[in-house]
Amino acid sequence: MDLRFSVHARDGTTHARAGILHTAHGDIETPAFMAVATQATVKALTPEDLESVGMQLLIANTYHLALRPGAEVVAELGGLHPFMNWKHALMTDSGGFQVFSLGAAIRDGVGKIADIFPEEDAGEQRSEEAEGKSESPNHPITQSPKGIPLCKIDDDGVTFKSHLDGSIIRLDPERSIQIQHQLGADFILAFDECTSPLDSYEYTRTALARTHRWAERCLAQHAKTRRDYQSLFGIVQGGAYRDLREESARVIGGLPFAGLAIGGSLGKSKSEMHAILDWTIPLLPDEKPRHLLGIGELPDIVEGVARGIDLFDCAAPTRWARNGGLIVSRAIAENPEQRLNIKNSRFAADRAPIDPTCDCYTCQNFSRAYLHHLHRAKELLYYRLASLHNLRFMARFMRDVRAAIIEGKFSELYGATRTTKLSV
Amino acid sequence: MDLRFSVHARDGTTHARAGILHTAHGDIETPAFMAVATQATVKALTPEDLESVGMQLLIANTYHLALRPGAEVVAELGGLHPFMNWKHALMTDSGGFQVFSLGAAIRDGVGKIADIFPEEDAGEQRSEEAEGKSESPNHPITQSPKGIPLCKIDDDGVTFKSHLDGSIIRLDPERSIQIQHQLGADFILAFDECTSPLDSYEYTRTALARTHRWAERCLAQHAKTRRDYQSLFGIVQGGAYRDLREESARVIGGLPFAGLAIGGSLGKSKSEMHAILDWTIPLLPDEKPRHLLGIGELPDIVEGVARGIDLFDCAAPTRWARNGGLIVSRAIAENPEQRLNIKNSRFAADRAPIDPTCDCYTCQNFSRAYLHHLHRAKELLYYRLASLHNLRFMARFMRDVRAAIIEGKFSELYGATRTTKLSV
Repeated sequence: MDLRFSVHARDGTTHARAGILHTAHGDIETPAFMAVATQATVKALTPEDLESVGMQLLIANTYHLALRPGAEVVAELGGLHPFMNWKHALMTDSGGFQVFSLGAAIRDGVGKIADIFPEEDAGEQRSEEAEGKSESPNHPITQSPKGIPLCKIDDDGVTFKSHLDGSIIRLDPERSIQIQHQLGADFILAFDECTSPLDSYEYTRTALARTHRWAERCLAQHAKTRRDYQSLFGIVQGGAYRDLREESARVIGGLPFAGLAIGGSLGKSKSEMHAILDWTIPLLPDEKPRHLLGIGELPDIVEGVARGIDLFDCAAPTRWARNGGLIVSRAIAENPEQRLNIKNSRFAADRAPIDPTCDCYTCQNFSRAYLHHLHRAKELLYYRLASLHNLRFMARFMRDVRAAIIEGKFSELYGATRTTKLSV
Repeated sequence: MDLRFSVHARDGTTHARAGILHTAHGDIETPAFMAVATQATVKALTPEDLESVGMQLLIANTYHLALRPGAEVVAELGGLHPFMNWKHALMTDSGGFQVFSLGAAIRDGVGKIADIFPEEDAGEQRSEEAEGKSESPNHPITQSPKGIPLCKIDDDGVTFKSHLDGSIIRLDPERSIQIQHQLGADFILAFDECTSPLDSYEYTRTALARTHRWAERCLAQHAKTRRDYQSLFGIVQGGAYRDLREESARVIGGLPFAGLAIGGSLGKSKSEMHAILDWTIPLLPDEKPRHLLGIGELPDIVEGVARGIDLFDCAAPTRWARNGGLIVSRAIAENPEQRLNIKNSRFAADRAPIDPTCDCYTCQNFSRAYLHHLHRAKELLYYRLASLHNLRFMARFMRDVRAAIIEGKFSELYGATRTTKLSV
């Protein structure tokens, strides 16, 4: 079954577009934001919670799931959909980003896995690290991983140590795709080499050539072992180097992928990220869906949509929630990031909901005072109520962006966003 | 408004009875088990979750809530019901147990609050300590707190240090009742002195006399500042000393309390606990509801019901859940405690629900394999799914006990329970 993606409306002055992505597990209205379910769960939320906030698609993590519980276990239980009881669409990443970013973290850090992932602070911290803890718009790789003993790249694949038990693991394009077939998500991603903003032009070029060779191997493997409903997305790399990004867009865009993701280092600033999108997207085939990997700040999403992005994923909205950062309407926001900090003592007796304009379960039922109390007391319920709110905000935001495109009002919304200090 | 309690059925051979306790926030079918909402939340669960599992009543913690967020904040927001958005009945304890058990913990430990409640492990650990972490059937006080600098008792009340910030706090019968009036639960408890199984007869007698004088002060304060719908329960103390328990039952049972709780040290063994109930309950007025404080093992509940107990509270079912102990039917249980340990690797690929006979959300939607994975990965969703299951089990268990009493089959159920090794 080929992936069906139809574009229903286009903005007149930008590249923004509204479409529908058809999957075996339901339709996805684009532009869409997908929540991150690293370990086959969006932290603290049930499938019903995610349905209730309007999430149409989740992204789970091949690296984490391959290590625990293992792709074989998930396959034995019928794949990720029944395993986590999620009836809607799923994506998995290829594991490449985690392997390289963990490798980089290890090299940049003290060199011992135990120091980076202390035993006491297991799942949560590991996922945070792997999902990209920094608030920067791109993945937090600051060094290329070449020559790192704990993560060794060759032209054929990558050898690394499990952060859970130190066992030696080999991942290559074929294995990554096979694992993703076992996991059974609707959308799977090619196994690529992520480079960092600090990598030289030469290193980035070498890595890119490898990523392009791996892309063809991923496609070949995909043809062999995929479940009928699965679609493979290619990933455009090339760092912040214009010619490399353009070359990658042409190469990856020219291969028979079902969709195209833009990944790796998106530069050192918002303007570099925008430039990378401006170089890349016009060279990609218009009929395929485009996914900007790891981006989730509201102004960044609008900038991406304006340049023709259809899909976004980011762990930040749920991570902000757990850390006290609740997304609110611009009118009541404390800062350009549109978040208020529920830890602030001014909320201690505040009977208002987080955002009076929000229709989420949390805002309909609980006061800021109660959330402030739960957060201070480190109560488990806090994480759930806060995550629900932030994801509902993201879903409503994407719905508004989509409606604006369809109603010919996207430029208006885009202009309003650009007046904040966040955008260039 | 006086508390209305009606007994509808009595077992022919034991003292078991089935009744209805009418409150301004709904009726409670007894015998009933109430979940513990220490910090104005049952850990990881929403009010809707608690409704869905059939919880009719929760007990919150005066000591914890007085320290954080403070009784004034809760009162300003309309009381605990609107604060935590719980529409059904609530109870608060008096704070006495926490003050004395923290005092005892401090004296038995290294003498520094910081060592007992490390900053990093705030709310959860504190609550666990205060709620009674041991698996023993009674409160985990092992020493009387007399003479402890961090918790000083005089005939008028108690002076202690806050475990949160070390500030000096004074609690006496009047203040405890006032705080409970501010919190606004339907049932509130008298401020008493908890003694331990290690206390001498002389000390226990002295403490009991104080508790009895405090009981009258609690009643006097209750008459002055209560909300119309609030009812005050007295607490029978006296340790494991028969004459003191009998004296306390006569004194407390003779005062105009709306209900009667049995608290403090319930002895060093199950048989001592049963003896204490056998001495006490026949001396209590039959028309008032009886609450056995801090008991939650299934066989102990049946033993309590057989002796005429109507209400139970215990933090253990939700604590077991968080630690991997899931309550199951006797037919599939691994041990007389009727729990299976989801951490066991034999569940890693087990597609069955926790308990195939259970109708809870968790069992209807997720496999043991998924729960095993979530627990290993320390995922927040685990705590919620496990807590939901255990509380649903408790609610179903109490419903079955009640039905057995009404249908004249309680002796049968009681006999089946007594054949387990847990009971004497």
